[in-house]
Amino acid sequence: MDDPKRSERRRFLKEGALFGLAAGAMGLASARALHVDSAEASPKPAKPVEADADALKDYKPYGERSPYEIWGRKNDYMEQTTIVPAKKMTPLDEIVGTITPAPLHFVANHSIPPNINPKEYRLLIGGMVERPMAYTLEDLKRFPSVSAIHFLECDANSHPNAFLTHKGKSTAQDLHGRTSCSEWTGVPLSLLLKEAGVQEGAKFLVSDGHDSMHYSYDLPMAKAMDDAIVAYGQNGEAIRPEQGYPVRLVAPGFEAPYNVKWLRQIRVVDQPYITRVQQIQHSYMRPDLKGKALWFYYQTPPKAIILRPSGGHQLPGPGYYDVTGLAWSGWGKVARVEISLDSGKTWKEARLQEPVRSMAHTRFHFDWTWDGQETTLQARCIDDHGIVQPSLEELTEQWGIPGGKKYWITPGESAGGYHFNQIQPWRVAADGSVHNAMFD
Amino acid sequence: MDDPKRSERRRFLKEGALFGLAAGAMGLASARALHVDSAEASPKPAKPVEADADALKDYKPYGERSPYEIWGRKNDYMEQTTIVPAKKMTPLDEIVGTITPAPLHFVANHSIPPNINPKEYRLLIGGMVERPMAYTLEDLKRFPSVSAIHFLECDANSHPNAFLTHKGKSTAQDLHGRTSCSEWTGVPLSLLLKEAGVQEGAKFLVSDGHDSMHYSYDLPMAKAMDDAIVAYGQNGEAIRPEQGYPVRLVAPGFEAPYNVKWLRQIRVVDQPYITRVQQIQHSYMRPDLKGKALWFYYQTPPKAIILRPSGGHQLPGPGYYDVTGLAWSGWGKVARVEISLDSGKTWKEARLQEPVRSMAHTRFHFDWTWDGQETTLQARCIDDHGIVQPSLEELTEQWGIPGGKKYWITPGESAGGYHFNQIQPWRVAADGSVHNAMFD
Repeated sequence: MDDPKRSERRRFLKEGALFGLAAGAMGLASARALHVDSAEASPKPAKPVEADADALKDYKPYGERSPYEIWGRKNDYMEQTTIVPAKKMTPLDEIVGTITPAPLHFVANHSIPPNINPKEYRLLIGGMVERPMAYTLEDLKRFPSVSAIHFLECDANSHPNAFLTHKGKSTAQDLHGRTSCSEWTGVPLSLLLKEAGVQEGAKFLVSDGHDSMHYSYDLPMAKAMDDAIVAYGQNGEAIRPEQGYPVRLVAPGFEAPYNVKWLRQIRVVDQPYITRVQQIQHSYMRPDLKGKALWFYYQTPPKAIILRPSGGHQLPGPGYYDVTGLAWSGWGKVARVEISLDSGKTWKEARLQEPVRSMAHTRFHFDWTWDGQETTLQARCIDDHGIVQPSLEELTEQWGIPGGKKYWITPGESAGGYHFNQIQPWRVAADGSVHNAMFD
Repeated sequence: MDDPKRSERRRFLKEGALFGLAAGAMGLASARALHVDSAEASPKPAKPVEADADALKDYKPYGERSPYEIWGRKNDYMEQTTIVPAKKMTPLDEIVGTITPAPLHFVANHSIPPNINPKEYRLLIGGMVERPMAYTLEDLKRFPSVSAIHFLECDANSHPNAFLTHKGKSTAQDLHGRTSCSEWTGVPLSLLLKEAGVQEGAKFLVSDGHDSMHYSYDLPMAKAMDDAIVAYGQNGEAIRPEQGYPVRLVAPGFEAPYNVKWLRQIRVVDQPYITRVQQIQHSYMRPDLKGKALWFYYQTPPKAIILRPSGGHQLPGPGYYDVTGLAWSGWGKVARVEISLDSGKTWKEARLQEPVRSMAHTRFHFDWTWDGQETTLQARCIDDHGIVQPSLEELTEQWGIPGGKKYWITPGESAGGYHFNQIQPWRVAADGSVHNAMFD
């Protein structure tokens, strides 16, 4: 490959002359543009030639990645302990921008997913409604659609167990990969409920999936009538099988378990029904309440994650770095992201990539000149409700968990817990290596 | 699959009772929630079981579509007449929302694409600059990135030749499939130019690709310093090979040929250089100017396309339809989309999906109750510069082409022409079939 030379301009101008290029005022064709005979200049078709087979392989009806791009989802730290190997973490430190490609969306299923023929699919709406309904997929597509870019985050994302499992070798994918952001398209749930006619006294929905365990989850009526979507589209195409094909619920900002996949039926009810998964898997024991569980978490709390640099990266040397990552809040928009370079003593404001979307991954940037000394980088998110991302100590104190960090490294004590949005530090060592420093 | 029954509610409540579900005030866990013993409620890991191989196939590091989703790109009408079979049309009438999945992005290449190892990639910036530069891909990724959702449209999209080739059997994909919309991520070109130090008197760039013909195209300096992106990301992942892997130029709103793929070098120059493709393939002969060409088209003109219903669709019968489609303008935002149901005599305003993004596909919706009579549907776009999408007669009159529609159906007269944004009518026949009615 050529290197640029000072003589570049002269050479180009010479080559340019061979092209028969002519001068013209900017934006004006008539100026001094080369006269070309009509017959020559007409874009008449060239003769077809035998094309190289290798060159054609990229032009499939459904395209492929470059063979050099090998990033994939990894199993999470709980993989070997769950019933089906259905947990996959998004490679957050390899994706760019704000949209997660559908093939890299995280997966956190509870059972074996169904194989649904879209022609046989029906969505049932029943319970406390005037007119129980059964919709085909085509019926749903005949309603006016809505599209919105929203993140999903598993309520077990960023669990301290992941930090302890991977120790200092954690990547951003290992620790935080159970979140992704898509453009979801479908029918406003409120429209379907209005069609069915919700009866007085109805306050909740229970939504069931088509998977092998008949996954089921509550949703408050207020959310259903606000911005929930019965979605059939993700990033422009049909929702992937692992994401709930052909139809899933999307409850923007609510923790991912509310976003029921392979949606089979919605039952309108008068009270929260606290389903099996909500009871057995997602209830959270509060040590200070002696065996009582806290069930209802809705909005995903605010979180910011630094992705470049992050665990496993190697900085080539001192100098300028764009510290960048993603932040989000289930309560609304990210208002600020702040960066600390001194273990949390002082915080400086990062820049947010516009437009900042509500309940969506928001990219932040922070200019940093690394002096080559060991440095701890951390980010925190403040959302437009004024909610500030806490430290692990602050977070677990709110939950009545004693002992701060020590609790989590005590064997047998760290099994429970969800909704982790603690600030997570990356340490850049003097040799440029980067590792998780949460339990250092 | 069950049908919903009037007894649904009673049955559910009965089943619900078996679950041991208890009442609680909305959002409050303590209310009347079932007491669960700590040991039972703890989300302790279940024993792993042999999982069904079929169930696991969907959990690949890089996910796949449902086997029921078979939509793909089709060759365009010029396929057999071009040098390499490198033209692919996006299935616009099958995608949903506003983002085009990367594997379904249109392709309109001029030659055989390169196979670039990203480790060996260099971007050269030379010509009228103080400091000629050579950037590796990693260099580019170290700059603060920008991400923006923008459409691209081939300047030959919606050519009347396509209408004539397919006659009344055209689908929206056949006629208009050379446009797609992505989130592009990369470095602002202005940043790279500032680093290189643009010399006084520099007014244009010439950008060259790595493909077999060394595709090359102009760009005015004003655009380069405004919002052009040296992009390496598309919809969150690396740009696909057919879209310019690893780096392409994105000039938002400008016709696709300005968005040079497999970007090899950018040469800063003092005037437009009117490259080979610009001269030979993209110049447009004006019949009224006797052999003179019009070269400089920048912004893609406003266009609205109805996608549901569209060519090849079959309406099941009279009743409600959501008339939906996409609109865009290279000049800025879509201000209005208007629908006519009476062959253009009257126009009614459609609803736009918020947020309306600048220089991006914008989805519109229009409530229509079909009475079962033959009806002609058409949409037109008005952008925030007040530019109104014209009829074919109005468009070609502007270009000095005599004869209106007749010109295009005269053998030998219809080879030339680009930048087509004429209003296109779909005719819904009394039997519910839908076909293109432009040359009826």
